[in-house]
Amino acid sequence: MSLGGHLPKKRQPRQAPGKGDGVRQEIIDRALGIAAVKGLGAVSIGNLAKELKMSKSGLFSHFGSKEKLELAIVEEARHLFVEQILRPVRLRGLKGIARVWGLCGLWLQFLEERILPGDYFFTGALFEYAGQGGPLRKAIIEVLDEWFDALKDAVNEARRRGDFDKEVDASRTAFELNNILIGAQWSDLVARTNYAGARVVILDKLRTIATGDLPAGIFDSVGEFVNYLGSRFR
Amino acid sequence: MSLGGHLPKKRQPRQAPGKGDGVRQEIIDRALGIAAVKGLGAVSIGNLAKELKMSKSGLFSHFGSKEKLELAIVEEARHLFVEQILRPVRLRGLKGIARVWGLCGLWLQFLEERILPGDYFFTGALFEYAGQGGPLRKAIIEVLDEWFDALKDAVNEARRRGDFDKEVDASRTAFELNNILIGAQWSDLVARTNYAGARVVILDKLRTIATGDLPAGIFDSVGEFVNYLGSRFR
Repeated sequence: MSLGGHLPKKRQPRQAPGKGDGVRQEIIDRALGIAAVKGLGAVSIGNLAKELKMSKSGLFSHFGSKEKLELAIVEEARHLFVEQILRPVRLRGLKGIARVWGLCGLWLQFLEERILPGDYFFTGALFEYAGQGGPLRKAIIEVLDEWFDALKDAVNEARRRGDFDKEVDASRTAFELNNILIGAQWSDLVARTNYAGARVVILDKLRTIATGDLPAGIFDSVGEFVNYLGSRFR
Repeated sequence: MSLGGHLPKKRQPRQAPGKGDGVRQEIIDRALGIAAVKGLGAVSIGNLAKELKMSKSGLFSHFGSKEKLELAIVEEARHLFVEQILRPVRLRGLKGIARVWGLCGLWLQFLEERILPGDYFFTGALFEYAGQGGPLRKAIIEVLDEWFDALKDAVNEARRRGDFDKEVDASRTAFELNNILIGAQWSDLVARTNYAGARVVILDKLRTIATGDLPAGIFDSVGEFVNYLGSRFR
């Protein structure tokens, strides 16, 4: 079960269905590049226009407001997130523990392979906008809800299949797995710990609730295995 | 062991040793209020001057640069963090498991009692500035290092005292406890789960590595007990 081993690693530009959409996509791509490194607050129409050698009014006309540009950036980040994590797990028809592990493994891979250039999405966006209300906060939280529900559904399904003990609380387990992922990103940002430690802790957690052994194929990907061996706690 | 039960809940203005420091502190307090809700990127000299009815140049003269103002905000947030979490644990002379639990409990209480008005510090600041380099990133990471080291030292001390199994890996345990704290804040921001679930997961974790029962006084504070009972996983 090599998760993501032959997935496209580079972002593909979204299809441009009409005239002008190519330019719009180019603006969003550049804006996402800035936001991913420096946060949504660092994106300005003025700086974007300068970088893309466009007039401010020309750039503005593609969105109509700064907020709509910001929403388009969040939507683009969501698109990447879904394409790189949720969709591969669905396409491969992963079930039970393999699905739970697939979601967690691809989440970590998303960071390791720097699918987005920075460390900001989505945790940084959540903490920056949670206190502010408005459509941007709503859009960010919708993505994270979608993620958490996918994780909880996977745990529930694994329990129904008999992979996990019948007593396993899916909400609590999803909470615990998600804590490891978010916390691992925190630790990597603070102390460059990498994500191998998170893999060890997740697998140990899955072992404690599994009714049998973990699936043998869980380390079919050499990258996953090397990552696992390289675990380091500081 | 009522942790934080009779601690000052409101921020005390720092001592102003010289003329003009009162104004400087007032500026920092207001700036911290904005940053705590909207992020450091949302603080501007112009907006602050307007709110405080000062001239931009007058306000600027207290810091010399936008970056120095931002560093002063981070330092003030650090001061609160130390006074409300690290120092009470030290002053009460907590040892072993009680010290580990004291650090985690006060960390959660810091959020629950909204010692700072927003949800931004320090996780939001970390994710916003981690990719940017410079003194601001350094200052933010120093605080988080200080926190993580305090947690790891507490686990180590508890192990040496015999409260935890001799085989307990302090770095891994601190990593796991910190994951729960950071993840709990994420969950509360996404789904208003509150922090009771985090307390259950932390106590269950401590139970698995403790050599004996958890200290009986761990719920001496009624607030802590009510919080524990109100655990909710979504």
